[in-house]
Amino acid sequence: MIGARAARAFAPASVGNVGVGFDLLGHALDQYGDRVLVRVIEEPVVRVSAIRGLVTDLPFDPVHNTAARAVASWRSALGLACGFEIEIDKGIPLGSGLGGSAASASAALTAANALLVQPGDIASLYPHALEGESAASGSRHGDNVGPQLLGGLVLATHDRLLPVPVPDCLHAAVVHPHYVLETRRAREALRGHYALSEFVAQSEGLALVLAGCYRQDLELIAAGLRDVLVEPRRAGLIPGFAQAKQAALDHAALGASISGAGPSVFAWYRDAASAEQAALAMAEAFATVGLASDRIVCKVASPGARVLEVL
Amino acid sequence: MIGARAARAFAPASVGNVGVGFDLLGHALDQYGDRVLVRVIEEPVVRVSAIRGLVTDLPFDPVHNTAARAVASWRSALGLACGFEIEIDKGIPLGSGLGGSAASASAALTAANALLVQPGDIASLYPHALEGESAASGSRHGDNVGPQLLGGLVLATHDRLLPVPVPDCLHAAVVHPHYVLETRRAREALRGHYALSEFVAQSEGLALVLAGCYRQDLELIAAGLRDVLVEPRRAGLIPGFAQAKQAALDHAALGASISGAGPSVFAWYRDAASAEQAALAMAEAFATVGLASDRIVCKVASPGARVLEVL
Repeated sequence: MIGARAARAFAPASVGNVGVGFDLLGHALDQYGDRVLVRVIEEPVVRVSAIRGLVTDLPFDPVHNTAARAVASWRSALGLACGFEIEIDKGIPLGSGLGGSAASASAALTAANALLVQPGDIASLYPHALEGESAASGSRHGDNVGPQLLGGLVLATHDRLLPVPVPDCLHAAVVHPHYVLETRRAREALRGHYALSEFVAQSEGLALVLAGCYRQDLELIAAGLRDVLVEPRRAGLIPGFAQAKQAALDHAALGASISGAGPSVFAWYRDAASAEQAALAMAEAFATVGLASDRIVCKVASPGARVLEVL
Repeated sequence: MIGARAARAFAPASVGNVGVGFDLLGHALDQYGDRVLVRVIEEPVVRVSAIRGLVTDLPFDPVHNTAARAVASWRSALGLACGFEIEIDKGIPLGSGLGGSAASASAALTAANALLVQPGDIASLYPHALEGESAASGSRHGDNVGPQLLGGLVLATHDRLLPVPVPDCLHAAVVHPHYVLETRRAREALRGHYALSEFVAQSEGLALVLAGCYRQDLELIAAGLRDVLVEPRRAGLIPGFAQAKQAALDHAALGASISGAGPSVFAWYRDAASAEQAALAMAEAFATVGLASDRIVCKVASPGARVLEVL
């Protein structure tokens, strides 16, 4: 069943939630990403042997490490006798809202899958990616692992991944301010109760964005791409958010909101040039509150995880 | 601007909410419907002169009558000098969850529009239909007037109507038990607070149904068509609901839930024959709790309002 000694894979960062699809919708990004090497070992365990790169203070134990937990779940489902050793190169800053924890799991599973004589399809990896993600967030939601595995814009339900077609011209501008927002704090802000009217307004946005994507109608996407449910509860946790969002909208964004749990901010544009200019303006907005930041500009239909080498 | 003396139009009953799209999604039905005659009068007012048919104890005053309120809103927007007299033939039982109040407004606007030398498009009628609907429900939601005006399955946002393509084979079985459930009681059952997790689960269903419709994928529709948000809060108000829903599912429904505010129950099927058999079984289920019922079986892509005659 196992046909290689080791494999290395890359999984990109991603925008979770995408404003209208809390815990359900996400899209892949380019540039940032995690690289993970998975090596076959005789000992029947899954262990992490190295964590390098942008983030190094991550748990090594396989219950709390997203990559190890994902691979252990996959190994168990396949009934493999051998074990695996994992080396993680982090290319996504932690607590950025760009799916960093998820990317380690996505890359590890993509690498592990490449070790098989007959690798499974992406759908077969998804439940294990969810299991890995739960090591970091405590819950199983696929809005980051989904697009990281599949690429592009993805509807990630509790048991399936559905690619959502997006107009090829669509570009994302994502700005990551250097401010640590703990996912725990971002989740706490969502505690409490919600009104049915909020739900209806948010659903309207989700439905418009989905319909706009399937109809390739940018005007519909623009009408729907706003978050009236989660953003109001989290915006206050991100210094400079209002200014950065305004800068995004001032550059004719189809919509702009928080990426994942924040503090990164994303916005969608009709072309690359607008997205480039907007990203600069968004970064300047964060600078006015004293925050340096990184910028990502890429197609919303960016590619997902890929195998880099099989040894 | 006005080119005729009078016009008569028909608007069909409809399934509101469709399980996954509370206040947002609805589809037209065949068989049941309201017929409304709108006649030009010199006096600059809008008044109801007759209410006939299945329901006659409706308000005549133009603030509380949905048809009159809709036509008054339309007349005002167009700045018309003349007035209008309205005769309503009710073909939809009130308090059935089949959009009866909305249908009078939809039919009245369709007739009024036909009086113009250059009738407006359906989108131009929508805000007035919402205004008419609000006379009955106290809020502006288009999940009944939307499909009644446009036909088929419709996403009805606060300011636009979007037809959603449905597989032509898709049939609805709708059973209306003879039990009066006041819309007010059905709305009261929804008071109180909601958890974010309920929202995520319900959004997943909405997204799957929409994606399934756009991809013409019945399996996706079946995966999404269930109501975890509203149905649990209303089911107890409808005697025999659980049995009728079970009967619908036992006949291989793609999904089944409450139509609008109830007590009618709807279910979707892959073909007409299954829907016919299911409707019988659902009616039998209501009979076991002592309720007689009516059955409707039609395509989900049933036609919307139409002009019957222009005089």
